[in-house]
Amino acid sequence: MPFDRLIEKITALQNPTVVGLDPSPERIPAFLRDAAYERYGETPEGAAEAVLAFNKGIIDALYDIVPAVKPQCAFYERLGWQGMRALHETIRYARAKGMFVIADGKRNDIGSTMKAYAEAWLGAVCTGGAPYEPFGADALTVGGYLGRDGIAPLLDACKDFDKGIFVLVKTSNPSSGELQDVMTGDGPVYRRMGLLCEQWGACLPGRYGYSAVGAVVGATYPSQLTELRALLPHTFLLVPGYGAQGGSAADAAKAFDQNGLGAIVNSSRAILYAYEKEGCSGRDYAAAARREALRMRSELTAEIGKMKF
Amino acid sequence: MPFDRLIEKITALQNPTVVGLDPSPERIPAFLRDAAYERYGETPEGAAEAVLAFNKGIIDALYDIVPAVKPQCAFYERLGWQGMRALHETIRYARAKGMFVIADGKRNDIGSTMKAYAEAWLGAVCTGGAPYEPFGADALTVGGYLGRDGIAPLLDACKDFDKGIFVLVKTSNPSSGELQDVMTGDGPVYRRMGLLCEQWGACLPGRYGYSAVGAVVGATYPSQLTELRALLPHTFLLVPGYGAQGGSAADAAKAFDQNGLGAIVNSSRAILYAYEKEGCSGRDYAAAARREALRMRSELTAEIGKMKF
Repeated sequence: MPFDRLIEKITALQNPTVVGLDPSPERIPAFLRDAAYERYGETPEGAAEAVLAFNKGIIDALYDIVPAVKPQCAFYERLGWQGMRALHETIRYARAKGMFVIADGKRNDIGSTMKAYAEAWLGAVCTGGAPYEPFGADALTVGGYLGRDGIAPLLDACKDFDKGIFVLVKTSNPSSGELQDVMTGDGPVYRRMGLLCEQWGACLPGRYGYSAVGAVVGATYPSQLTELRALLPHTFLLVPGYGAQGGSAADAAKAFDQNGLGAIVNSSRAILYAYEKEGCSGRDYAAAARREALRMRSELTAEIGKMKF
Repeated sequence: MPFDRLIEKITALQNPTVVGLDPSPERIPAFLRDAAYERYGETPEGAAEAVLAFNKGIIDALYDIVPAVKPQCAFYERLGWQGMRALHETIRYARAKGMFVIADGKRNDIGSTMKAYAEAWLGAVCTGGAPYEPFGADALTVGGYLGRDGIAPLLDACKDFDKGIFVLVKTSNPSSGELQDVMTGDGPVYRRMGLLCEQWGACLPGRYGYSAVGAVVGATYPSQLTELRALLPHTFLLVPGYGAQGGSAADAAKAFDQNGLGAIVNSSRAILYAYEKEGCSGRDYAAAARREALRMRSELTAEIGKMKF
């Protein structure tokens, strides 16, 4: 099961963090941009190459201390198909370094369309010639608004290729309550969605108690995080909202079980652009990212304690 | 406003249909696949080129009778970045022929991430050099589960670039009710989501009464379609579920207002693969698609009557 692999990696590194790879060509260090533009011109291709070089530097600096990365698809789509090529290469590079890769695409569709997404992100495709992995991530974030029809094709891919999904349950943003907190006969909408995750995951149980169907729950809503951790004992949590969005380490710690397992906490820009905050040279961006990742690990483990299974 | 443009095109052609471009290399006529594989090998590139050639044939056969196409992103992502390049070329080709292009990506995220999606699909990006449109569609399907934070960046792009969005409200699939029909104090979840669309669109009104924020409502739920048409007078509807999924022309007609406007009905595979059903040669796939599109137009207009503003 995919989250068994992730849990083993988290435990080995004693670090329940995932680094979001959301790079903008406008914000990465100038030397990388200049080098790519020199070679490819100030084109989408140049921008995509700069982002790829940036990502490789981050991965090289983190792979021995951080178990996972989470590339955010939007930042690659924004660079057109050239950006999608950079995403493909980023995922391949991170996996070759042993990192667990969560593609953050929040995909949501039904039937043959969702099957196509499952193949794109988690599976392999054979259109003639040799089968190939279009993007080849370990897990994908998805929406659950369409119900089981949108989840079933993913479960097939999870089973066939040992992959996982994270369903949006209670997101970290300020307006997440507009729909997610609306009360139903069984409590708020997010609780209903969470219970669907438990139900959907039941057919794919994992060795450490967590199924292949995880959930996204924001650190910015610590009481809901506490509630959902208790209510969803088989659902591994992906926790955004730590740091810049306002969630503290103590808030994020509510996502974990008594063994210090069951969740992974995301940080994106605080790590990617640590060099800006430190005021160091852009050429040291990767070392600055490592320092910030180590700081985050200390902060989280001080709250969570030792991770063991 | 984007849906003004679409309404004018629908009225000019007297055809409220959109053709879904969801091609699989495995299912398109063999002569297209053979030609692409001959040139590019049995590779993702070959598969993507075959799909692009197929799409161009469909667009050539339909652009003077059908106002819009709706490429489904999943089917291009499934072919990796090479597929995304084919998607980019497909959108460019359809727009050059004057068609309105709805990218069916059901994207959903917040803040800077949603802004990146808005730029990717509806806007332009300037990373150095000249600005470019990563994918350049006229409208994008999106999820609303995250609330206004996920919609606001899209509204900016809609305003700046004269584009539109369709929010998932009541989808056509059998399990759509698992979450969407759950009762809240204000009625079912889908109604709440529909009312949010009216609210979000209020700042972007259109000439014919429809804002830049549309909604997806399936023809497979005719009573909800009737309810939502009445409840959401400023929300243009994208209606899947006609044909293969079980929605009839009479069902789909419930999406339209008294002027025969306010909605567009999707058909995908029934048109793309009409040649299979007709039993004609794959080489005639485009002519067969045109015949099926004309048949669908007749069937719909018989129910809806003349479209006028």
